[in-house]
Amino acid sequence: MNAGKEINMENFTYYAPTYFAFGKGAESDAGKYVKRFGGTKVLLHYGGGSVIRSGLLERVKESLQQAGIDCVELGGVRPNPRSGLVYEGIALCRREGIDFILAVGGGSTIDSAKAIAAGTVYDGDFWDFYTGKIVEKALPVGTVLTISAAGSEGSPDSVITKEEGMFKRGATGEAFRPVFSILNPALTQTLSPFQTACGVTDIIAHLYERYLTNTKDVDVTDRMIEALLLAMIQAGPKAVKDESDYESRANIMWAGMMAHNNSCGAGRTQDWASHDIEHELSAQYDCAHGAGLAVTMPAVFTYTMPHDTMRFAQIAVRVWGCQMNFANPEETARAGIEALRSFLISIGMPKNFAELGAKEEDIEKMAHCACFGNGNTGAVGGFVRLEQKDVENIYRLML
Amino acid sequence: MNAGKEINMENFTYYAPTYFAFGKGAESDAGKYVKRFGGTKVLLHYGGGSVIRSGLLERVKESLQQAGIDCVELGGVRPNPRSGLVYEGIALCRREGIDFILAVGGGSTIDSAKAIAAGTVYDGDFWDFYTGKIVEKALPVGTVLTISAAGSEGSPDSVITKEEGMFKRGATGEAFRPVFSILNPALTQTLSPFQTACGVTDIIAHLYERYLTNTKDVDVTDRMIEALLLAMIQAGPKAVKDESDYESRANIMWAGMMAHNNSCGAGRTQDWASHDIEHELSAQYDCAHGAGLAVTMPAVFTYTMPHDTMRFAQIAVRVWGCQMNFANPEETARAGIEALRSFLISIGMPKNFAELGAKEEDIEKMAHCACFGNGNTGAVGGFVRLEQKDVENIYRLML
Repeated sequence: MNAGKEINMENFTYYAPTYFAFGKGAESDAGKYVKRFGGTKVLLHYGGGSVIRSGLLERVKESLQQAGIDCVELGGVRPNPRSGLVYEGIALCRREGIDFILAVGGGSTIDSAKAIAAGTVYDGDFWDFYTGKIVEKALPVGTVLTISAAGSEGSPDSVITKEEGMFKRGATGEAFRPVFSILNPALTQTLSPFQTACGVTDIIAHLYERYLTNTKDVDVTDRMIEALLLAMIQAGPKAVKDESDYESRANIMWAGMMAHNNSCGAGRTQDWASHDIEHELSAQYDCAHGAGLAVTMPAVFTYTMPHDTMRFAQIAVRVWGCQMNFANPEETARAGIEALRSFLISIGMPKNFAELGAKEEDIEKMAHCACFGNGNTGAVGGFVRLEQKDVENIYRLML
Repeated sequence: MNAGKEINMENFTYYAPTYFAFGKGAESDAGKYVKRFGGTKVLLHYGGGSVIRSGLLERVKESLQQAGIDCVELGGVRPNPRSGLVYEGIALCRREGIDFILAVGGGSTIDSAKAIAAGTVYDGDFWDFYTGKIVEKALPVGTVLTISAAGSEGSPDSVITKEEGMFKRGATGEAFRPVFSILNPALTQTLSPFQTACGVTDIIAHLYERYLTNTKDVDVTDRMIEALLLAMIQAGPKAVKDESDYESRANIMWAGMMAHNNSCGAGRTQDWASHDIEHELSAQYDCAHGAGLAVTMPAVFTYTMPHDTMRFAQIAVRVWGCQMNFANPEETARAGIEALRSFLISIGMPKNFAELGAKEEDIEKMAHCACFGNGNTGAVGGFVRLEQKDVENIYRLML
C-alpha cells in the first residue's frame, strides 16, 4: 500500500449549470421548465409503482400537458439500473424523435436517463461511456427527485450495471449535468426509514470520498465537507425517525445535492475507494448501495487511517465531537471512525457481511473485479493506492 | 425595532450557471472561453493602471487575438463604480456592435460590466434596474478576477453609484450571472495588505448577512456559512501577512465566490442591513467598501443581538471558538461580536468613524438615505427592521 503524491490546491474547472426549483409543490412546474430548456417531446422515465401510487407521475404528466409538451413513457428502472433498459430507452427515443428526457425518481432513474440521453445521440454503444469515454453530448435531462442520496440531480455522473457479467460502472461528463432538477423534500416523505437511512449514508460517503485527499492546504473545501456532514448528523436521525419532518428532509435534500455537485471537491484529489469496493457488493448481491457503503466505509477507513492519522483525527474532532488526544492522535482518529460506525448502526444500517447478505467466498473475486474493472488498472483509491490484496483485507474487516 | 416573521425553510430557485476556470495561468484561456460562450466582438472593460502595469491586460488581449476575437477597450472603472462610465460603455457597445463584455478586474469592474451589459440591450435608462426592475436580459459577461471580495464573479448582483446625488444602489437578475469567470489566485498577489484585508472583510460580511435570518431549521446553510467563515479566519491573516502565499489566496478566492453565489443563502431570509448602512459611508466618503463594513458590522450586530441572542451565541461558539456560557448566553453572543471586531482590527481594518474619515454631522442624512433609498421604504434589514432612528443609533455606535 503506497501513499498518494502530496500536492497543493490544483487547477480545476467547475461548471454546475443545473437550475434548481426547491420546495413544496415544485413539481407542478415541470412542464414550464421542460419548455424553458427547449424540450418539445419528452421521454418520461421512472422506476416502479411508487411514483404511480403516490400520484406524482400523474401530476407531472398534467404539468407537461398544460405546457403543451408531448410525452412517451418508459418505466421499470430498478435499483442498480441495468443496461437492458438503457438500450430499450435509446431505441425508443430514436423511434419517437424524443428531444428531452425527464427522470422522475431517485439516483437510479436519473442515472438511467443520463445513459439513454448520451446513447441516443451517439453512433456507437452507450457502454463506451462507462468504460472511459467522456460524455460530451447528450439530450438534455431534467429531474423530479424522490430520494436524497445519489446526488445525480446536480452531478455530471451516472452509474449503470451491465447485465452481462453484472459489472457496475460509472460515466462522467459535463453533458451529464441535468438542465433542471425539481427538489421537493415532501416527495421523500413516502420513503421507508431504511430507504431514508440508505440515502443519508450515501451522502455521507460522497463527503468522505472527497475529504480523504492528499492535497495540502485545502481548508475551505475541508470546512465545507465538515459542514455538510454536521448537517447530515443532525438531520439524518430525525428524518429516519419521523417521516413527516419536512425540515430535516429539506436540509438533507440540499446537503445531498451540495455533497455531490463537487463544489466541495474542487481542486483536491479524492478517494472513491469505498465506492469502488462497495460497487462489487451491490452488483453481486443487489443490496442497497447505501447499505453496502455503511459496511464498507468503516473498514476502508480503518485500513487507510495510518496513511494520514491527523486527517482522521481532524474529522473526528471537528465532525464527531471527539476530544483530541494530543499525546496519541491515532486514538482520536480511531474514535472518529467508531463514531461514524455507531451513527450508521443507529439509523438502521447493517454492520457486516452477514447483515448485508454477502459471502466470504466471493471476496477474492470481488477484490479482483474492483481493482481491474471500471477502468481501474490494478488498484482502487486516490487517497491510498489499494491493490487486490489490500481490498481483500478490507472485505475481511467487514466479516 | 420590530422582529421579522418566523418561518421555516422557504421554497426557492437556484441557478448558478457560471463556468469557473480556477488556478495558475487560467487567464491564458480567456479567448477560448469567450468563443465557447458565443462572443465575437468583445468590450474589454477594466479599471486603473494595475492590470496594465502587471501585464495582465496584455496577456488577455493576446488570448483574445489568438482566438480570433475582435476587441474594443474601455478602462477607467473606479472603486464604487459610477453611472457616467456605464452610459459611456452602453453607447460604445451599441456603436461598435459588441456582443460580449469581458471584465478584467475586481467587483467594481465586474459590476460596471454587468450594468453596461444590461443597458446595451434595454430601451430605457439602465438606472431602472438599480431602482427595482429585475434584469431579465443582458449581453453575456465574462470575468478575469483580480481581487477576492465582492463575489460578483459568481453572483447575479451589481452595485453602481449614480453620480447625481451619489446614490449607491444594487440591481439583480439571473441574466447578471457571468457566463464564465477566470479565477487565478496568483493575480491577487499584487494587492496591498489593506486591499486584501478589505476583500476578506467583504466576504465575511456576505456570510453574516445570510447568517442573520429569521428562518428556522436551516442547519445545512448555517453550517456552510460557518465553514466558509472558519476558512476565512484561517486564510485571511496569512494572505494579509504574506502576499506570496498562493494557498491562502486560493482558499479565499473559492470561499469568496461560494460566499456570494447564494448556495448558502438559499431558502432563508437574509439581513443586508450592514451593506445598506455601509453603502452610505462609501457613497459619501468614497472609502473602501470592506473598510466601511469592518466599522459597520460590529455596530449593527451589537444593536440587533437582543433580537436573537442564541443565534449570535451559536456563531460565537461554532466560528469564533468562544466557550458557551449556558447561564448567560448573551455574554457568549457579545464575546463573538468582540472576536469579530478584534479579528478585523488585527488584519488592519479601521474600527470607527474617525479612522474611516466619516463625520458625525452626516449621520442623520445617511440614516435617512439608507432607509428611504435603494428601493427601501422606511427601513433596512431582513433580520431586524431598522428604521431611521435605529440606523442613527447604529452609526453613533461607530463613533
